[in-house]
Amino acid sequence: MNLILLLPGDFSDNHIVTLTDERRVKHILGIQKPKVGDQLSVGLLNGKMGKATITHMSSNTISLEPVLDIEPPAALNISLILGLPRPQMLKRTLQNIGSLGIKECVLMHSNRVEKSYWQSPLLAAEKIRQELILGLEQGCDTVLPTITFAKRFKPFIEDTLCHEVSSSTALVAHPYVPQTCPKEIKGNIHLAVGPEGGFIDHEVELLSSIGFQGVTLGSRILKVETVIPYLAGLLAR
Amino acid sequence: MNLILLLPGDFSDNHIVTLTDERRVKHILGIQKPKVGDQLSVGLLNGKMGKATITHMSSNTISLEPVLDIEPPAALNISLILGLPRPQMLKRTLQNIGSLGIKECVLMHSNRVEKSYWQSPLLAAEKIRQELILGLEQGCDTVLPTITFAKRFKPFIEDTLCHEVSSSTALVAHPYVPQTCPKEIKGNIHLAVGPEGGFIDHEVELLSSIGFQGVTLGSRILKVETVIPYLAGLLAR
Repeated sequence: MNLILLLPGDFSDNHIVTLTDERRVKHILGIQKPKVGDQLSVGLLNGKMGKATITHMSSNTISLEPVLDIEPPAALNISLILGLPRPQMLKRTLQNIGSLGIKECVLMHSNRVEKSYWQSPLLAAEKIRQELILGLEQGCDTVLPTITFAKRFKPFIEDTLCHEVSSSTALVAHPYVPQTCPKEIKGNIHLAVGPEGGFIDHEVELLSSIGFQGVTLGSRILKVETVIPYLAGLLAR
Repeated sequence: MNLILLLPGDFSDNHIVTLTDERRVKHILGIQKPKVGDQLSVGLLNGKMGKATITHMSSNTISLEPVLDIEPPAALNISLILGLPRPQMLKRTLQNIGSLGIKECVLMHSNRVEKSYWQSPLLAAEKIRQELILGLEQGCDTVLPTITFAKRFKPFIEDTLCHEVSSSTALVAHPYVPQTCPKEIKGNIHLAVGPEGGFIDHEVELLSSIGFQGVTLGSRILKVETVIPYLAGLLAR
């Protein structure tokens, strides 16, 4: 937690924040171990960031006076379209999305996504939000990414995604194409990453038909939780 | 397990391999579900890769005839010098090192490494090797990375590392410097990454004194398990 994320409900008036939840209070008291008068790095969810001075502390309550005058860091120019990962990998992937600055992600069904993954309790909106907030607190950002679901591959590609990619660079990571991934792309990027086992050929063809360019990362096959930061680094401007 | 890694002891003569360990047999029977006569992707530890034809299968034994005629993929040009991560993060980091193609890593003590981490049973040579092998099997590579320890920061920097970096580009990832990370560096790179909480100023100064250049990734702070693939992507040629 490199940034304490504040929620609108934490403010008792415009100036004073009172934290009473165990997660943040325990972290501040147990890890950061500040004194009254010390300053913490804070940010308002979907708002500005800054410093907050501790005005009061007890074992279960911390009062802060924040000054929020810093814009959050720029978002990455990547919209991610991701084959729904297995639940444990989804957690780390959502945290990575939060910390890396990816602001849009569609979790998509495809042939090699196990249908049972769609039943995971981790897909509840509140669970997703919790993982994203962990990522924002790690990465020092306040802007909550938007996560949407596409449970039917073909209609999503043909009816929705095809309209979104017309003005962006659209790439699909796929080990079995000769083209290596371009770097430092200007403008928006739509980046499609398959599930464990990858997209099947037919899916890559459908993505190609709406303008996605297949790109390989070489012969290495990386886990979803590894390939997303790798691609973010590769495409970083 | 995108590649079944074979060990010299698996060969009953030059041509025939018999797998009897639960981990590989269970994976092949339970996940890959092949028939006799099918081919699997295999590689000999620290040797060549290729295909192996299944000649016999039972519930606890698989016999294979491998043809090993493909060189493993090129190594990354990055030697990693890493503040020892907490044990759970170390496991994933070692797997990442294996799958990304990093072949040298020094796990180093520094001010913000908790001393207790050095007592972790995960630092046993056999445990480290197991995690690296998982990474090689994920990334389709056979060459086992070399992991060494530097339990004393200053002597390691001043007596050992200073001699190794003279002919390479030496970078230390540090959020609090203005210089952004260069890309596509030719030749060898020594890349120093701090522990959770980063290096302290004095440590960055000592690294600078032997030729390390501080580079920032911007204001975002990434977990070790995220920053290593991110940097590998950023520095990829």
